[in-house]
Amino acid sequence: MIKVGIIGATGYGGRELIRLLGLHPEAGLVKVTSTSAAGQPLGAVLPAFDGLTDLSLEPFEPAVLAQECDVVCIGVPGTESMPLAAALREAGARVIDIGPDFRLKDPESFKQYYGVDHAAPQYLESAVYGLPAFYRRQLENASLVAVPGCYPIGAILPLRPVLEDVNPQVPVIIDAISGISGAGRSTSEALHFPEMNENVWAYKVGRHQHIPEIEQELCHPTPIQFTPHVGPYTRGILSTITFRPEAEVDLNACYAAYEAEPFIRLRGEGVLPELKHVRGTNFCDIGWVNDTRTGNIIIVSAIDNLMGGTAGMAIQCMNLMFGIEETAGLGFGGMSV
Amino acid sequence: MIKVGIIGATGYGGRELIRLLGLHPEAGLVKVTSTSAAGQPLGAVLPAFDGLTDLSLEPFEPAVLAQECDVVCIGVPGTESMPLAAALREAGARVIDIGPDFRLKDPESFKQYYGVDHAAPQYLESAVYGLPAFYRRQLENASLVAVPGCYPIGAILPLRPVLEDVNPQVPVIIDAISGISGAGRSTSEALHFPEMNENVWAYKVGRHQHIPEIEQELCHPTPIQFTPHVGPYTRGILSTITFRPEAEVDLNACYAAYEAEPFIRLRGEGVLPELKHVRGTNFCDIGWVNDTRTGNIIIVSAIDNLMGGTAGMAIQCMNLMFGIEETAGLGFGGMSV
Amino acid sequence: MIKVGIIGATGYGGRELIRLLGLHPEAGLVKVTSTSAAGQPLGAVLPAFDGLTDLSLEPFEPAVLAQECDVVCIGVPGTESMPLAAALREAGARVIDIGPDFRLKDPESFKQYYGVDHAAPQYLESAVYGLPAFYRRQLENASLVAVPGCYPIGAILPLRPVLEDVNPQVPVIIDAISGISGAGRSTSEALHFPEMNENVWAYKVGRHQHIPEIEQELCHPTPIQFTPHVGPYTRGILSTITFRPEAEVDLNACYAAYEAEPFIRLRGEGVLPELKHVRGTNFCDIGWVNDTRTGNIIIVSAIDNLMGGTAGMAIQCMNLMFGIEETAGLGFGGMSV
Amino acid sequence: MIKVGIIGATGYGGRELIRLLGLHPEAGLVKVTSTSAAGQPLGAVLPAFDGLTDLSLEPFEPAVLAQECDVVCIGVPGTESMPLAAALREAGARVIDIGPDFRLKDPESFKQYYGVDHAAPQYLESAVYGLPAFYRRQLENASLVAVPGCYPIGAILPLRPVLEDVNPQVPVIIDAISGISGAGRSTSEALHFPEMNENVWAYKVGRHQHIPEIEQELCHPTPIQFTPHVGPYTRGILSTITFRPEAEVDLNACYAAYEAEPFIRLRGEGVLPELKHVRGTNFCDIGWVNDTRTGNIIIVSAIDNLMGGTAGMAIQCMNLMFGIEETAGLGFGGMSV
Repeated sequence: MIKVGIIGATGYGGRELIRLLGLHPEAGLVKVTSTSAAGQPLGAVLPAFDGLTDLSLEPFEPAVLAQECDVVCIGVPGTESMPLAAALREAGARVIDIGPDFRLKDPESFKQYYGVDHAAPQYLESAVYGLPAFYRRQLENASLVAVPGCYPIGAILPLRPVLEDVNPQVPVIIDAISGISGAGRSTSEALHFPEMNENVWAYKVGRHQHIPEIEQELCHPTPIQFTPHVGPYTRGILSTITFRPEAEVDLNACYAAYEAEPFIRLRGEGVLPELKHVRGTNFCDIGWVNDTRTGNIIIVSAIDNLMGGTAGMAIQCMNLMFGIEETAGLGFGGMSV
Repeated sequence: MIKVGIIGATGYGGRELIRLLGLHPEAGLVKVTSTSAAGQPLGAVLPAFDGLTDLSLEPFEPAVLAQECDVVCIGVPGTESMPLAAALREAGARVIDIGPDFRLKDPESFKQYYGVDHAAPQYLESAVYGLPAFYRRQLENASLVAVPGCYPIGAILPLRPVLEDVNPQVPVIIDAISGISGAGRSTSEALHFPEMNENVWAYKVGRHQHIPEIEQELCHPTPIQFTPHVGPYTRGILSTITFRPEAEVDLNACYAAYEAEPFIRLRGEGVLPELKHVRGTNFCDIGWVNDTRTGNIIIVSAIDNLMGGTAGMAIQCMNLMFGIEETAGLGFGGMSV
Repeated sequence: MIKVGIIGATGYGGRELIRLLGLHPEAGLVKVTSTSAAGQPLGAVLPAFDGLTDLSLEPFEPAVLAQECDVVCIGVPGTESMPLAAALREAGARVIDIGPDFRLKDPESFKQYYGVDHAAPQYLESAVYGLPAFYRRQLENASLVAVPGCYPIGAILPLRPVLEDVNPQVPVIIDAISGISGAGRSTSEALHFPEMNENVWAYKVGRHQHIPEIEQELCHPTPIQFTPHVGPYTRGILSTITFRPEAEVDLNACYAAYEAEPFIRLRGEGVLPELKHVRGTNFCDIGWVNDTRTGNIIIVSAIDNLMGGTAGMAIQCMNLMFGIEETAGLGFGGMSV
Repeated sequence: MIKVGIIGATGYGGRELIRLLGLHPEAGLVKVTSTSAAGQPLGAVLPAFDGLTDLSLEPFEPAVLAQECDVVCIGVPGTESMPLAAALREAGARVIDIGPDFRLKDPESFKQYYGVDHAAPQYLESAVYGLPAFYRRQLENASLVAVPGCYPIGAILPLRPVLEDVNPQVPVIIDAISGISGAGRSTSEALHFPEMNENVWAYKVGRHQHIPEIEQELCHPTPIQFTPHVGPYTRGILSTITFRPEAEVDLNACYAAYEAEPFIRLRGEGVLPELKHVRGTNFCDIGWVNDTRTGNIIIVSAIDNLMGGTAGMAIQCMNLMFGIEETAGLGFGGMSV
């Protein structure tokens, strides 16, 4: 039994990790911490888990966590996990960070997009980007995993094998729409129910902090146009990707290696994914259209931003880190309703 | 490994059973049938399950099902499971029916509320009403289980232990609101997204087919007022129950036996349940208010109509039927977002 | 042209007043004030109105408002309008308060439910409760109108003409569900989109501040059981009312006087209203069921809480105060989609 | 008073026309027809309008309509208005068609995208495309107006003045998301509430019937990439447009002529529109970002597909046709909640 601790258990990513661990056959939650609610029973703070756990929230003590947990997952707002992860690593814990702090290899880029100096740059090189399709081997021995961001997962998985076959000069445009859980549990007038219901908008166009992460992993020298939107629903990211290759590209061939991926489903040419098929799952569904009229390829991907986009991906990384079945605890089918 | 078959796999109850079985440690899906889609791979008809199963939908053949399955679950529209269940029983299969056909002990009542004669009345007596809190022992040896209706679960669990202590003349009023999945997958103009979004209405007031089921299980001689509503969301039933006992009633004492129930959570006096705490779970949450100003007791219950209200309850019954841990495969915490 | 000022223009009630005045043939907005946004153009603070008005938000100056406005509408949180209304009245302005401060005739009751002493009790007697169906004549000369609360409108209109014919000992139960706009624009974790989406709960059971208002206007000596709920949508209140009269009651006769009411629609026996039919309108729709099995009458009413429940009702009162056509500017049909 | 008839009054476009005419100071509804509900009172078929009109639905009789109406609006599914409009024109009626049948000047293109031969090509030349910003003068004398499609409005208004200044070789990509009312009132499993709630998908990629309409009005020789999506809400289209001009483009200059447009709101550089600001209005809001990092311009537009995208635009055209104030009956501010 892998003993797991969660830092920031009351956030949306933390809650989803707790939920998934409740079904995991070979891992269990042993420690939960929270700054705001330390001392209270987890089931009192999060009634959704009442009756399923006797754990209480504790303050953050890295030595204790390192001793009692096989792995510690961190789910705190961006820029706040740097000192926590560093302290945990120094105490000897293996760490899975579901936040952004260790995803970018370049601390300059981190500073530019997150607005602060990186507090633990010494861990950037060894941190493994937690995208199993591309870093499976590194994950096996990782001591610090940076789980990819939700938008990057929906962009990198459909694009990385394809752009290898595309002229580096070709511009790529990604319009993505996310459910509101992606913004986390912090309240704001913009996301107050009556303001957000029946509403859609684009935001941080050309300057979203996931841009450098996407570009780092795509190795495509032309800057990516990434336009995120938010829509009136809770879970899921649909990413619509458009580009015009100079020569024909065979997407089935590009994606051949994905046939063996346990959580990527190729829907094929002309079959486009829907959020409902991935809701509550760890899958990334991918479909596409070759528009011969315009010469463009349009690829659409769908993920559940809290599962395949965060907590499910973290569990998949954990499974690899501990050498157990990669799919353990992740056999969820989609909640199509 | 308990081998499970599902009749009517493409309906909402059937889909949820498939989803839950994917995580069950001691049961697995071996047969799925569908009238409308026989011959097609399950993952093609329901892309939510693509990649998780190699099964194909088959026509309904009771002898085959009885031979290859330890238990067969039926999820078809009301009045359609009678012949299927009878054929399966005759072929020797153990059956769990998630529809209404075997819930009412009185065939006259069935005819009155469902509009047709009962086609298999010989099974009504032996059919076990699948509410573990009250029929746990009978479920262990059941050959035909009638899983309770979603509204009845939300009404019977909070009321049955309480009404034993209440004057039989006291009228009880239940106003319940259900998500739209409760109406199943049949399309209608009323449930077309633009018509139902931002809409709420009451329906079948005083004549809903769940009334005789609630009354059968409550053993309260005064007719229950049951007013169902539908609201603009997918999952969950919140039931608000009001009555004025003639003498004081101690609800904590009434509910004492529930402390041992694995899927009933007593929220206590003054703490009212929310749908988000039970979404995606097998729980029924119960809270209440003693309104000393009016003399009324108001009890509120919350369930996920597709899990604790249908498929989760079916799995719990199955676990009991096969003598395995009652909670196996049901350790889901609430999807609070 | 009736010159209208609005205090608290950025709240949900204030916004709706602005919207309705934009279509009013005989009234126009001339002053808007806001504590938080004084000095800014209204169209900048509320982009929904950009291009429709050149007004800027101003600080609250009662003398200026009294001089330049024929009537001043106040839309601020409960307990905050008392001093504003008093200052406006002292400056000679006619006032329409869409908040609760002048609805209760009894200051003790106000203190009990709102938690503070009434700051302007000298106006309580002359304040007219702005429900035209019952106070049409008084509204014509009113200098201070207290527009009813949203829940009370949905309860009083269906009940008042009926309870006159019902034994005063008969208990009445009201279960109502409101869209989230009813809670106003203040953010909270409970109403953050991901927390509230797909969620329903009951709240303030037996102690909601609208209870004394409902009871004041119903003149029914038995305390009313009022259980408010909130559901995952923006606009509308559906109220389900249940009681058991000792003798037969003819609801068509009770409601005879409503035939002449311009904004009450009787849907009749067995035809229950839906929120979509009243969305965006000033109507209250009423339908009912006589359940002969239980002996109960169940009445259901539907309003748009921001229009028929607040701003539309305020405009209707204003029309009466100024002797113009009562329906002026209110001919909106329902936005059924 | 302009006397208006509506053909297809029970569809979503028809309903919205009825709603808007209820508030119009100089036009009124005098005739409504419906194939499915002829003979019934309008208020019985559409309870949202009960109490506001005494009209009954009638069968389609072009001579009667031509005689009793100053203008007849047609709101029927695509390809069904051709014979109706022709019959009305032959009977001498002025016609506003809110469907697609008379928008495309090229009958070959119509056949390609709508799958049938055009049944009344003799009217294509004289039909005026009902986009006042570009055809205001022609609308004044129009006898047949083809109101633009909802997606085209959201694409043409932001793009047409800009593309005049852009190299004709530049490819343009439009990703748009629509509320579900855009699909009309026909039920389907895909748009059944539980299937569509929390769901988003792209459809008809590269082959949507609005493509030729957009291209006709843009006069940009490079084929437009148009990818429509549908999201879980009722009203509104957000269009995100991306292209990379070869030389700098001054959007403020491009849009200079829009300053005088009554229903176009320029939000400016860096200020992106939201659906909530246009909901319930005739406005098209436009904002943009010049992304210097990528060299792309991203323009975002927002409309209410049933108002500014259909019925409001039709009223604006009607106002122009009859020489009354262009904005009459259209002064609606946004329903931001």
